[in-house]
Amino acid sequence: METLSRLEKTIAQRRTADPSQSYVASLHAKGLPQIARKLGEEGVEAAIAVLSGSDEELVGEAADILFHLIVALNARDVPLADVLAELDRREGVSGIEEKASRSA
Amino acid sequence: METLSRLEKTIAQRRTADPSQSYVASLHAKGLPQIARKLGEEGVEAAIAVLSGSDEELVGEAADILFHLIVALNARDVPLADVLAELDRREGVSGIEEKASRSA
Amino acid sequence: METLSRLEKTIAQRRTADPSQSYVASLHAKGLPQIARKLGEEGVEAAIAVLSGSDEELVGEAADILFHLIVALNARDVPLADVLAELDRREGVSGIEEKASRSA
Amino acid sequence: METLSRLEKTIAQRRTADPSQSYVASLHAKGLPQIARKLGEEGVEAAIAVLSGSDEELVGEAADILFHLIVALNARDVPLADVLAELDRREGVSGIEEKASRSA
Repeated sequence: METLSRLEKTIAQRRTADPSQSYVASLHAKGLPQIARKLGEEGVEAAIAVLSGSDEELVGEAADILFHLIVALNARDVPLADVLAELDRREGVSGIEEKASRSA
Repeated sequence: METLSRLEKTIAQRRTADPSQSYVASLHAKGLPQIARKLGEEGVEAAIAVLSGSDEELVGEAADILFHLIVALNARDVPLADVLAELDRREGVSGIEEKASRSA
Repeated sequence: METLSRLEKTIAQRRTADPSQSYVASLHAKGLPQIARKLGEEGVEAAIAVLSGSDEELVGEAADILFHLIVALNARDVPLADVLAELDRREGVSGIEEKASRSA
Repeated sequence: METLSRLEKTIAQRRTADPSQSYVASLHAKGLPQIARKLGEEGVEAAIAVLSGSDEELVGEAADILFHLIVALNARDVPLADVLAELDRREGVSGIEEKASRSA
């Protein structure tokens, strides 16, 4: 499960690369609205793949979401570790309370 | 980085819980279109948070995406490990080729 | 305000055109999931344009949503008139009741 | 087809109403990001309904998109007429050129 932290490092490095050589740098060159837009679009594509895609297509779309989510977090200088810590915090809430906690 | 695999196990367990006691079970009770819809909506919410939210809101929305992505993968019986393996596979592609590979 | 009904007719006609000559036909050739996906993506793009786009970009994205919404309705053989009738029905609900009606 | 221009007027009037009495005013009270978010979410919901909903559900989601699109345009002081004019302009492009024009 080292994949995501390695990916986060790679993305951070590519941020300042030549936009003609790096997809991450090209997103940054277009600005934060384009980064946000890609994340939202990947959410839509993954949702469609959940309903209508093959397993392979779903895996590809899920990978796209994770990739663009980390690009977006990095663009905002928010560490992925903070997101995982939030998930751990929620996990601490026991079963019965889960729903009330989530809808709060 | 054990967070996501632990979350995946928890979500798999809750899938068959009482829908009145578990948010995951309540999503399953509503069916796959509702699970897909939640994933897509979380993508939108995260995109808006990237542009307009505080760091805390962005962390919350990013956690929501990861949570609902794993619910959706689990509903389709696709292991998160397959998605991470796909990210590792793409990572193997070196810098210059990155963009061409992604747009292929 | 004849625009949308004229557009609906044009879209219905193009549905059976040569996919290499018509964008509408090319969407149909790719199937309903692709039509649904485009509609969802246009929703994301319009949302980003509301927050970050120029007036001209917002107009373009709003036009894209209307176009793809009518393509999707037509693909499901649902007349736009039914959607307008639903909006008229809701409009009949007076001010104070509006919110309760919408959240029902 | 007077429906949308009438709806646009109603939405413009409700914008300054009491947020506890009007859904439109309550969206404005929450700010532009919330208005953008709702538009994006309705795009997702409509996309899911295209794939998995009944005709009645699709009509309801399509009405939701149109409603929130007009709320968003109004919040940006962009007239719906400008969007319809853009659709008319595109319609002027003849069949063969359609696709090239759209992707430009």
